Amino acid sequence: MDNNVFRGLSYGVYLITAPDGERPTGCVANSLIQVTSSPATVALSLNHDNYTNGCVAKGGKFGVTILAEDSDPSLIGRFGFASGRDTDKFQGLDYTLTQGVPLPKVKGCGWLVCQVVDKLETDTHTVFLAKVLDGEPAPGTPMTYAYYHQVIKGSSPKNAPTYLPPDTQRAPANAPARWQCGVCGYIYDGDTPFEELGEDYRCPVCRQPKSVFKKI
Amino acid sequence: MDNNVFRGLSYGVYLITAPDGERPTGCVANSLIQVTSSPATVALSLNHDNYTNGCVAKGGKFGVTILAEDSDPSLIGRFGFASGRDTDKFQGLDYTLTQGVPLPKVKGCGWLVCQVVDKLETDTHTVFLAKVLDGEPAPGTPMTYAYYHQVIKGSSPKNAPTYLPPDTQRAPANAPARWQCGVCGYIYDGDTPFEELGEDYRCPVCRQPKSVFKKI
Repeated sequence: MDNNVFRGLSYGVYLITAPDGERPTGCVANSLIQVTSSPATVALSLNHDNYTNGCVAKGGKFGVTILAEDSDPSLIGRFGFASGRDTDKFQGLDYTLTQGVPLPKVKGCGWLVCQVVDKLETDTHTVFLAKVLDGEPAPGTPMTYAYYHQVIKGSSPKNAPTYLPPDTQRAPANAPARWQCGVCGYIYDGDTPFEELGEDYRCPVCRQPKSVFKKI
Repeated sequence: MDNNVFRGLSYGVYLITAPDGERPTGCVANSLIQVTSSPATVALSLNHDNYTNGCVAKGGKFGVTILAEDSDPSLIGRFGFASGRDTDKFQGLDYTLTQGVPLPKVKGCGWLVCQVVDKLETDTHTVFLAKVLDGEPAPGTPMTYAYYHQVIKGSSPKNAPTYLPPDTQRAPANAPARWQCGVCGYIYDGDTPFEELGEDYRCPVCRQPKSVFKKI
């Protein structure tokens, strides 16, 4: 089997949020599908390693923020490339509590609040089946995982099923060296040579400093 | 809750195929996600009404053909807008049997053969959890559900969770009348006025004749 086949599956990009009892937390997921329409239910897959998984299992509810193409990409770094165990992911971020679920006030294509009604367990992930309690759309173009990968130049955390090693072999032999963020996988593609960027440059996805970038 | 929020969720478009014991059959689904990477598993939601659902439940295996933007759109009509109970969906279509699963020989972005390992039941749909036994990618741009909807102008069957009534209210008051396929929901948008099309005109998605179109 050639695992590149999984690059052909299409997804959106979502912030999954939940209270942990003390404070709000969350993560990034793309593995969300609508299952039924009346009543509306969705299925969501989350890695056991994600702190949010345990919070959803314990509290029985989660929020979904549908990211848009023009959502701030640093939201993906904030929610996707750190653990809620040791980071307050909502620090400095305004949010509402809707039916007990934290929903960040950010530019997106809408939100859902969901209540878990069943689940499937695998060795590494839980698939939650959840009833949608409430939701509202917002105008915009939904961000797809392909858009995140191809336009924002982001990648997946290593524990995501969609993670694939950087495809460094596609660069022609005479192409200039590329620089990749060691935290989130973002590959710099600005016009200014990376070496000439100011020391205050930060990864646009995960906000890490220039020093975490590596030449590839 | 505003059900338009579900328009913000992103999907691919897939042919789901399986043997029914006598012959190959299949349907169209967009509700497929990868769950784990090692071993690779996927989750797939299928309506109880779909003949393919029972075939997958009985045989324990299914195939996935990942449709590409340049896949023949009539494949969606063939597999998505008729029932395998009374139609041989593979009639005139070449296919392979891979590990006992029929895979149509069509232009797409790759294929998977999957074995069911667990499932969740809802009132109307089954969520199958399945181990991926084999798969190969193929070059191309995966068709997203948004592309099918916006570019091919297709819609969903009425039993799909993503089905929404035609959004006829968006047309300006002075816009010319539009014609919609009564079988698959395709809205004609060619330069030639619909009334002037030849009687041999067929819906490009489901191949139904001009007579099934209705003015909206």
